Amino acid sequence: MIDIQRVDSAIESRLDENLQELSELCSKPSISAQGIAMEETAQLVSALFAQRGFKTSVMPSKGFPVVFAERKGQSERTLLFYNHYDVQPAEPLDQWDSPPFEPIIRDGKMYARGVSDDKGHILCRLAAIDALLEINGELPCSVLFVVEGEEEIGSINLPQFLEMNRQRLAADACIWEFGSVNHEGTPIQIAGMRGSCYVELNVRTASRDAHSGLGGSIFPNAAWRLIWALGTLKDGDEHIRLPGFYDKVVAPTEEDLAHLAQLPDEAEHLRQTYGLHGFLKDLQGGIALKVEEVFKPTCTICGVTTGYQGPGIKTVLPAQASAKIDFRLVPDQHPDDVLQQLRRHLDDKGYGDIEITYLGGEPAGRTDLNDPFLQMVVESARDVYGVPQLIRPMIGSSGPYHMFQEILQVPIATAGVSYPDSRPHAPNENLVIENFVNGARHTARILANFGQFK
Amino acid sequence: MIDIQRVDSAIESRLDENLQELSELCSKPSISAQGIAMEETAQLVSALFAQRGFKTSVMPSKGFPVVFAERKGQSERTLLFYNHYDVQPAEPLDQWDSPPFEPIIRDGKMYARGVSDDKGHILCRLAAIDALLEINGELPCSVLFVVEGEEEIGSINLPQFLEMNRQRLAADACIWEFGSVNHEGTPIQIAGMRGSCYVELNVRTASRDAHSGLGGSIFPNAAWRLIWALGTLKDGDEHIRLPGFYDKVVAPTEEDLAHLAQLPDEAEHLRQTYGLHGFLKDLQGGIALKVEEVFKPTCTICGVTTGYQGPGIKTVLPAQASAKIDFRLVPDQHPDDVLQQLRRHLDDKGYGDIEITYLGGEPAGRTDLNDPFLQMVVESARDVYGVPQLIRPMIGSSGPYHMFQEILQVPIATAGVSYPDSRPHAPNENLVIENFVNGARHTARILANFGQFK
Repeated sequence: MIDIQRVDSAIESRLDENLQELSELCSKPSISAQGIAMEETAQLVSALFAQRGFKTSVMPSKGFPVVFAERKGQSERTLLFYNHYDVQPAEPLDQWDSPPFEPIIRDGKMYARGVSDDKGHILCRLAAIDALLEINGELPCSVLFVVEGEEEIGSINLPQFLEMNRQRLAADACIWEFGSVNHEGTPIQIAGMRGSCYVELNVRTASRDAHSGLGGSIFPNAAWRLIWALGTLKDGDEHIRLPGFYDKVVAPTEEDLAHLAQLPDEAEHLRQTYGLHGFLKDLQGGIALKVEEVFKPTCTICGVTTGYQGPGIKTVLPAQASAKIDFRLVPDQHPDDVLQQLRRHLDDKGYGDIEITYLGGEPAGRTDLNDPFLQMVVESARDVYGVPQLIRPMIGSSGPYHMFQEILQVPIATAGVSYPDSRPHAPNENLVIENFVNGARHTARILANFGQFK
Repeated sequence: MIDIQRVDSAIESRLDENLQELSELCSKPSISAQGIAMEETAQLVSALFAQRGFKTSVMPSKGFPVVFAERKGQSERTLLFYNHYDVQPAEPLDQWDSPPFEPIIRDGKMYARGVSDDKGHILCRLAAIDALLEINGELPCSVLFVVEGEEEIGSINLPQFLEMNRQRLAADACIWEFGSVNHEGTPIQIAGMRGSCYVELNVRTASRDAHSGLGGSIFPNAAWRLIWALGTLKDGDEHIRLPGFYDKVVAPTEEDLAHLAQLPDEAEHLRQTYGLHGFLKDLQGGIALKVEEVFKPTCTICGVTTGYQGPGIKTVLPAQASAKIDFRLVPDQHPDDVLQQLRRHLDDKGYGDIEITYLGGEPAGRTDLNDPFLQMVVESARDVYGVPQLIRPMIGSSGPYHMFQEILQVPIATAGVSYPDSRPHAPNENLVIENFVNGARHTARILANFGQFK
C-alpha cells in the first residue's frame, strides 16, 4: 500500500519546482491556430517526461507533432492520459493585465495563456507522478500520455494518429485533459462533451473594394450578403433554421436530469462573472437553464470580419466578408450532416455564392454514468476535497472525446486544476495554486487506486 | 491677354519639378482617421504656397489645422480653391504593389495613397499657378485656397471654420477639390454631390468574451445581436427600412435626365474594373443605372468587426460587436433626420441596446446647371481636351459641398486630374501624368478666363 499522506507531503515540497516547470512551459506561445512555437513546445513537453524516466517520442502527424510517453508500473493495467500542449490565441492582447506569455504569480494565482488549458493539467499529472515515484519508487500502474498540438483547432489529425497507433495506445481507461471544481469549490466529474462543427463562411462580390459613394446603390456588397445570409441561420428566438438540424437530437434521460438537479444552480454566478443582464429565452436558472446549457445544439457566431475596422470613417464598399461559425452538437448529431444541411440551406436561400470551409469538429461523446472507472475517480476525490465529485452528465464544450471512445474503446473520466474563473480562451487565463495542489493529490489517488483495480 | 500656349509650354517644362513636389507631399502619411502626420503635412502644404508668394496661415481648428493661402491678382474677382491634405487609410496594405507612402512612377502613372485624392489636385493647381506667374508675372484674378485636413473624416470641423472666417473667405466662385475625365478620356463637370450620414453601431452583451462551448445556448451574443439588427436596416431588395427615410427624396428633373442621357454608358467599364457579375436590382446599364447610381439614397455596410478574425479556429462567444454604416443622401434628406430615424427604428425593432455614434455627414448639394461660372469651366475644357466637359448633375459620393454653398454662397465647379481607375480609397491609388498635365492646363484657362469675367 502506498502511504498517500507521504505522497501529499512530497507534492507540497516539490511545488515550487513544478510551478517553475509550468512557468517555463507557459512561456512558449504554442498557438496552434497561428502555427507558432509548436515544434519547440513539443520538444519541451517530451523532455519533461524523459526527465521522469518515460520513454518518449515526438511523433509527426499531418499537422503538429504528438508527444507520446510511456512508463511501465507495478500493475499491468494501463491508464492513458490525454492532454494538449497547444493554446488558444491570446487576442485581445490589450485586455491582459500582464503579457500572456510571461507567466506571473499574483495573489495565489499564476497568469498566462494556457496555464489552465491545458499546460497546468500536464504539470498536475507530472506533480502526482513525481511524488509517487519519490515515495513509492515506481508507478502503481502503467501510464501512457498522448499530448497533442491541435486540440484548440479541432484535433483534426488526431483520429488518424489514434488509428495508426491503436496497439501502442491500448489502455484500460483514460483521464481526460481537464477537470475542475465549481464556484463552490466542489469537484466536478464531467462524463461527456458536446460535439462541434466549426466553419468559416466567405463571400466575395467584386475583385476589389469600391468607394461607397460610387457603388452604394448599384454594386453588390459582400458585407450585406454575409449579414443577410447569417440572419437566415438562426432566428431571434434562437431556433436554428438548417433543414433537419434537430432531427437526430436525443433528449436527456431521467438519470441525466437527476444528476443535473443535484448540481448547484450557477445562474447568479454566471450572471456576475460575465456581466450578463440575463440569459437567452428568459431563462432564470434551475434545471431549465442546466438542460439548455448542454443538451441543446448551438449556432454561435465566433467572429465576423469585413471592410474597414479602424478608428473613424472609411467610406469603403467591401468586396469580401467572412464569418466564423461554431455549431455545438448533442447526441446523435454529426458534423458531416450539419455541413450538408448548411450547404443546402444557403443554396435554398439564394446564397450559393457563400463558400463554406470546414475547420474542424466531431460528434458528441458520453461515458456511462455508472462505469466503474468513472465511479472510482468520483469517489477518490473524497479524500482530497472532503466530498466525492458531483457528476455533470455532459458539458457544453467539445473535444476529441468521441474519437477516443470510438477508436480506443476506453471509459473516460476527468480530474484537474480548473475553476469557473480560469478564463480559458479569454484574457487573464489563470490557475489557482491551491487547485493545482489538489488536482495533483487527486491524480495521485487515481493512479494508486487504479493500480489496485481488479 | 495671356498667351495660353506659352503657359502650356511652361507647364510642360516645369513638370518634373511639380511631380517632385507631389512625390514629397505623398510621402507624408496624413491619414486623418488615424491622426498620423497631420501637422507636418499642413506645414508642408503651407510652405508650397509660401514659395509661390502666397500669404499663408496654418489655422487651428477643433480638429486638424486648415491651411489658408491667398494671393491678389490682376482682377478684383476672387476664385476660391477648396482642397484637402488628408488621405484615406491605406489598408489593406498587402494589396498594394508598392508601399502606399513611397510614391513611385511606373508606366506613366504615379502610385501613392493620396496621389489622386487629393494631393495631385493641390499640385495641379500649383502647376497652373507656377506657369501663369512665369508667363504673366502675376495671377489673372485673386486666388484663395482652403486646404483642410478632415475631408476623409467628414469635414466635421469645417463648417465652424467657414463660419468664423466668412469675410476672409469671401469669393465669387469655387473650384472644387476634384475633377476627372471618364473612361473615354472625356472631361466631366460634376455639378453636385450626394450627402452622407456615417455612423458606427456598437453593442455589448457581456463584460467579457465567453467560451462558445459554455455560453452558446444561454448567453446573449453581441455578434448575433448586431447581425440581426443590421438585417432589419435594409431588405435583400435594397429597400432601406428606416421609417420616413424616403419621405423627402426629390426625383431628378427632366434637365438632369437629359444630361444623364448624354453621358456614356459606363456599365461594362464598371463591371470590368470591379470584377462584378452584375449590378443590384438586375440593372444592365443605361439611364436606369445612371439614375440609381446617384439619385437614390444608400445604406452601405463599410465594415463589421466582432470576435476572432485570425486564422483557424477560436471558440469564442463575443461580448462586443460593431459596424460602420454609411448612408448616402439625396436632396432633400438631412443627416439629422436619418440619425433620428435610425434610433427610432432600432428601438422599435427591440435593439435599444445598440449604440449609435455619429461620425460625420452633411446634406446633398447641387449647383445650378446653367450657372455662368459652371458653364465657363465647362467651355474652357474644349481648348485642352478638344471637347467641352460633359455635365454630371450629381455624383454618388459626398463632401462639404453643401456647406460651402450655404455659408459662402458660391457657385461650385470641378476640374482635375482623376480618371475612373484612380482607385481613391483603395490599394494602388494612382495618377496618370498626362491627366495631371491636362488638369493643370485646364486650371490655367479657368484662372485666365475668370480674370476676364464681367
